[in-house]
Amino acid sequence: MTLAVNSRAASRGRLAAAPTEEQAAQVRLLLDERRTGYSLEAPFYTDPEIFAADMQGIFGRHWLFAASLAEIPEPGDYVTVDYGPYSLIVLRTDEGVNVLHNVCRHRGARVLPEKTGTTGNLVCGYHSWTYSADGDLIHASSPGETSFDKACFALKKAHGRVVAGLVFICLADEPPADFDEVAGIFEPYLAPHEIANSRVAYQQDIIEEGNWKLVMENNRECYHCDGHPELACSLFPTWGLSEGIVPPHLEDVWNRNVEAEDALRGRCTRYGLPFEIVEELDTRVTGIRISREPLDGAGESFSATGRRLSKKLLGDLRDFRLGRCSMHLQPNSWFHLISDHVITFAAFPINEHQTLVRTTWLVADDAVEGVDYDVDTLTHTWKQTNLQDKNFVEMCQQGANSPAYEPGPYMKSEYQVEAFINWYTQRMREHVA
Amino acid sequence: MTLAVNSRAASRGRLAAAPTEEQAAQVRLLLDERRTGYSLEAPFYTDPEIFAADMQGIFGRHWLFAASLAEIPEPGDYVTVDYGPYSLIVLRTDEGVNVLHNVCRHRGARVLPEKTGTTGNLVCGYHSWTYSADGDLIHASSPGETSFDKACFALKKAHGRVVAGLVFICLADEPPADFDEVAGIFEPYLAPHEIANSRVAYQQDIIEEGNWKLVMENNRECYHCDGHPELACSLFPTWGLSEGIVPPHLEDVWNRNVEAEDALRGRCTRYGLPFEIVEELDTRVTGIRISREPLDGAGESFSATGRRLSKKLLGDLRDFRLGRCSMHLQPNSWFHLISDHVITFAAFPINEHQTLVRTTWLVADDAVEGVDYDVDTLTHTWKQTNLQDKNFVEMCQQGANSPAYEPGPYMKSEYQVEAFINWYTQRMREHVA
Amino acid sequence: MTLAVNSRAASRGRLAAAPTEEQAAQVRLLLDERRTGYSLEAPFYTDPEIFAADMQGIFGRHWLFAASLAEIPEPGDYVTVDYGPYSLIVLRTDEGVNVLHNVCRHRGARVLPEKTGTTGNLVCGYHSWTYSADGDLIHASSPGETSFDKACFALKKAHGRVVAGLVFICLADEPPADFDEVAGIFEPYLAPHEIANSRVAYQQDIIEEGNWKLVMENNRECYHCDGHPELACSLFPTWGLSEGIVPPHLEDVWNRNVEAEDALRGRCTRYGLPFEIVEELDTRVTGIRISREPLDGAGESFSATGRRLSKKLLGDLRDFRLGRCSMHLQPNSWFHLISDHVITFAAFPINEHQTLVRTTWLVADDAVEGVDYDVDTLTHTWKQTNLQDKNFVEMCQQGANSPAYEPGPYMKSEYQVEAFINWYTQRMREHVA
Repeated sequence: MTLAVNSRAASRGRLAAAPTEEQAAQVRLLLDERRTGYSLEAPFYTDPEIFAADMQGIFGRHWLFAASLAEIPEPGDYVTVDYGPYSLIVLRTDEGVNVLHNVCRHRGARVLPEKTGTTGNLVCGYHSWTYSADGDLIHASSPGETSFDKACFALKKAHGRVVAGLVFICLADEPPADFDEVAGIFEPYLAPHEIANSRVAYQQDIIEEGNWKLVMENNRECYHCDGHPELACSLFPTWGLSEGIVPPHLEDVWNRNVEAEDALRGRCTRYGLPFEIVEELDTRVTGIRISREPLDGAGESFSATGRRLSKKLLGDLRDFRLGRCSMHLQPNSWFHLISDHVITFAAFPINEHQTLVRTTWLVADDAVEGVDYDVDTLTHTWKQTNLQDKNFVEMCQQGANSPAYEPGPYMKSEYQVEAFINWYTQRMREHVA
Repeated sequence: MTLAVNSRAASRGRLAAAPTEEQAAQVRLLLDERRTGYSLEAPFYTDPEIFAADMQGIFGRHWLFAASLAEIPEPGDYVTVDYGPYSLIVLRTDEGVNVLHNVCRHRGARVLPEKTGTTGNLVCGYHSWTYSADGDLIHASSPGETSFDKACFALKKAHGRVVAGLVFICLADEPPADFDEVAGIFEPYLAPHEIANSRVAYQQDIIEEGNWKLVMENNRECYHCDGHPELACSLFPTWGLSEGIVPPHLEDVWNRNVEAEDALRGRCTRYGLPFEIVEELDTRVTGIRISREPLDGAGESFSATGRRLSKKLLGDLRDFRLGRCSMHLQPNSWFHLISDHVITFAAFPINEHQTLVRTTWLVADDAVEGVDYDVDTLTHTWKQTNLQDKNFVEMCQQGANSPAYEPGPYMKSEYQVEAFINWYTQRMREHVA
Repeated sequence: MTLAVNSRAASRGRLAAAPTEEQAAQVRLLLDERRTGYSLEAPFYTDPEIFAADMQGIFGRHWLFAASLAEIPEPGDYVTVDYGPYSLIVLRTDEGVNVLHNVCRHRGARVLPEKTGTTGNLVCGYHSWTYSADGDLIHASSPGETSFDKACFALKKAHGRVVAGLVFICLADEPPADFDEVAGIFEPYLAPHEIANSRVAYQQDIIEEGNWKLVMENNRECYHCDGHPELACSLFPTWGLSEGIVPPHLEDVWNRNVEAEDALRGRCTRYGLPFEIVEELDTRVTGIRISREPLDGAGESFSATGRRLSKKLLGDLRDFRLGRCSMHLQPNSWFHLISDHVITFAAFPINEHQTLVRTTWLVADDAVEGVDYDVDTLTHTWKQTNLQDKNFVEMCQQGANSPAYEPGPYMKSEYQVEAFINWYTQRMREHVA
């Protein structure tokens, strides 16, 4: 019951509560045993109390990608975002977004039970308590009530930021201070795609039977990409390798890749698009990596031939052959920016062994379905890839449950996995300090 | 494992075991933090150990409504009633009812696996151990057994009482002493409806994904009744309000209500039916509230027009326009008594986040289905209302799971909710004292 | 979290980890309270931590029947066997079997996700790490890797033994020392049936909603056999009784049984088949019981008439009327050896309240389906019996959940149940010593 009581305490003051000393000690012990370059000890993937600590220390304290403006194009549009024990309302306003805890201050009912919708004021479906878009309680019909002060019962707020059309939320009282800096880093890469002027072509929610960290680890390496036949058509087979670790049989591919990279760099320079790799996954609180890479084949998009999947370029782009710009953010998101579409991915933990992965395909606002793009064709590669990744994640979750599991070594091509784990362990060390 | 060991201890001596000192301390801490007039701290709705404490301190010590005689009209008829970890057999006998734990004394098998049935002796389906209707072991075929004393292996018994056709059970060694007093209070209200001479027209079991206390809280107020369009046809829109807290726009309704009340009071006086409100929800151990109120429209029954739903009056009633007599009992039941039918409701907790709600519609024994009443029409209003309530309860359970949940204020029209919570916290204080 | 941390420690050194001192103390306390001749205290059937202790102290330290050679007839054939948190690969080799933990040493993925199959090397589906049939890591493509020593990353091994066509596995570093002795006991009984030369006619997996010990207890008595109408056709109604505890109304049957036994003994002597009862269920670490008994009716097989179910005799048997030779092994298996088929049963615990029961029907290698036997007819008696047993086990699990459960007395005809519980408590005492 220690955890429950702790949760209660959490509901009083700061939402991102501190762990009990016993919990902190256990996590510290496990972190101390971690061997650099190796996967985590099993309880990090299987233990419900460590999951609770993750919700506090990671998802309760850091900036999370929640949605893009394309999902909430007009003021009044909202999405609800659920992870761990939380439910948040992300509401578009005239000025930007408001982020509100989806918990009525009267009897605790979920205020907006739908995943998405449009609303003026927020009216709880139980007793019609009515909140403004800012979360202020503006109406609570209460016959004969005299001493009731509405000002004390606003919906609890969280932080929200919009950068280049992406909406970020943070539950902490004091969000990580480096976000402005990081926003400044990625904004130039994303701005030309004008996500705010795109629209949702398709959104897929899948539940993976695996801990959220296994979902992220799987995302952070392409060592397993032989298991992605559809995706492999678009990627150079040398993806994820770097100078010096290219095996002999891939040297020709590597050279072709280098040539394509040079050509892409030339185009980017011409169009004023940034090209440099950003490699700060575990060197800052708001960990980030960006890279722009050519695609194989026609080099335009994630199709079997490499040709475009939508006829309309995004934003003010002027060329289809821009490869993909990929952004990885700690702790729970990744993005592919192509000339003709953008794909956003967010991992929302459900519990210690289940994670919701939400994938959203965005196309130009004026792209017409059936004319400029076909939804099935547009989404084919990553729908398949997601299903394959789900299988990989679930294989690992099963393994972590076995007493025979022992942390294994990350290979050189898995350096981003190691970076993710480094970032995670640093954050958790701070949390349990 | 502390809880499990405690359960084991429970199986030895008194069934309603005492909590461990650590558990008691945690509950006390949470009770001490409770702010009068506010909902409970989240763990009361979400924590499995507090649920276990509820099973001991509330459902293990108090009188519970289990069924009506209409469900077990003949000697030998039985229902099995399950809540929390318990399974009980409620068996009609020539004299009244026997209440027996549904656990064979040989290998622990469930003796009667069905929800309802008719039986002479009780024969366990595993090895045919046979018990009398009183629970005595009367046959245990056991080749060559010499030292086996059947007298030591009677089914464990619980207390059972029948009042005005309602069956109450209590697991405690010493049931609350005020039950006779309370039976004396409610018997005059129920007797004229002659529940013992009614029969079951329909029974509905629904599982609500919410803690049993949220089910009860929802039952104890009509502040949310805008969410019950079918029920709203029968109720005066001022239901749940009292003199002095009637909002201006409802004053006309209030006056119409007052007139209807006066007329109803006149009829009751004429027929010798009690009319006074009983308001003892949190002022005694066996908390109770009774009120008789007029219904809107034709004022006869829970239909859209207020007209009767069965052509046969119950018992020795002589008028259809008797409004509804409602009885609320702590901890888990409520009742509507109408001239043409009675509805009983019982909430049986399953675990900390699930509750079975059993609703039973009773009509006069001589009412003929298809002639005197139509089942769908009879049950429509409360079937719909139950589904709406299920949704409300589930919205609140979701909210209580969030660290953003904070106990909220009960409004004046929610005074019965506050009374339920007062009763609950008093009982639990005693339990963990 | 104590358990989780303990599991982690388990993954480091010895797989069959020691319990924490607190856990051990709790189990000791419960064992001390056990009354000889009575079923176990409820937590042994319901508590997840005691289940974890069972996995360590029983399933982590003893020999378990895993499969028969008929399931893996050729080198390269494998089955995967899952119980509790474990997944094991049982792989047929030229020499016998290899038993390997089904957990990749790289990222922990399940190496072989299928229940059965044929393979050369073992290739993990995630990153293609490739292991030899002995579990050695022979290939891990890893671009640019320099310091990686494959020799450190072999699949973890467990012990495997093949006796008379049955495959046994043991996870302990030092398996019980008496296995050779026990193999010497049962080998003569099984050898004539030549299980290694049989093949699988049918395999059934059912999940019983009950603790594995309830599954075993149910298997170890026929006091409940009135609940098995199909099986009752084959068994003498005196099964499980012994001289002196035969009730008067069964004396005629007993005498007929004795006659049939004498005739069977005569045939066995003629064919050189062992007949003596082995009764060592709780007198050694590798507990065993063997008995050969006549079947009722035609006395040939488990059919309604007692007639043969397959036209082909197994092995070098020369007579259909050999009754059944039954072997019971602690902790989780039992076997029926008939002249025309063999049935193997293994209980694989899933968690504290679920157990997989795998039943496999083996016929002579040259028996042709549809010609020599019909699958539905062959499997009818035990398919039905298994479903009935599932129901019995589930009735008991429900009962054990009730605080009203109290350990009940085993009858004389349940002496094998008592032997199982004796064996279990002795083993657990050693484990928590």
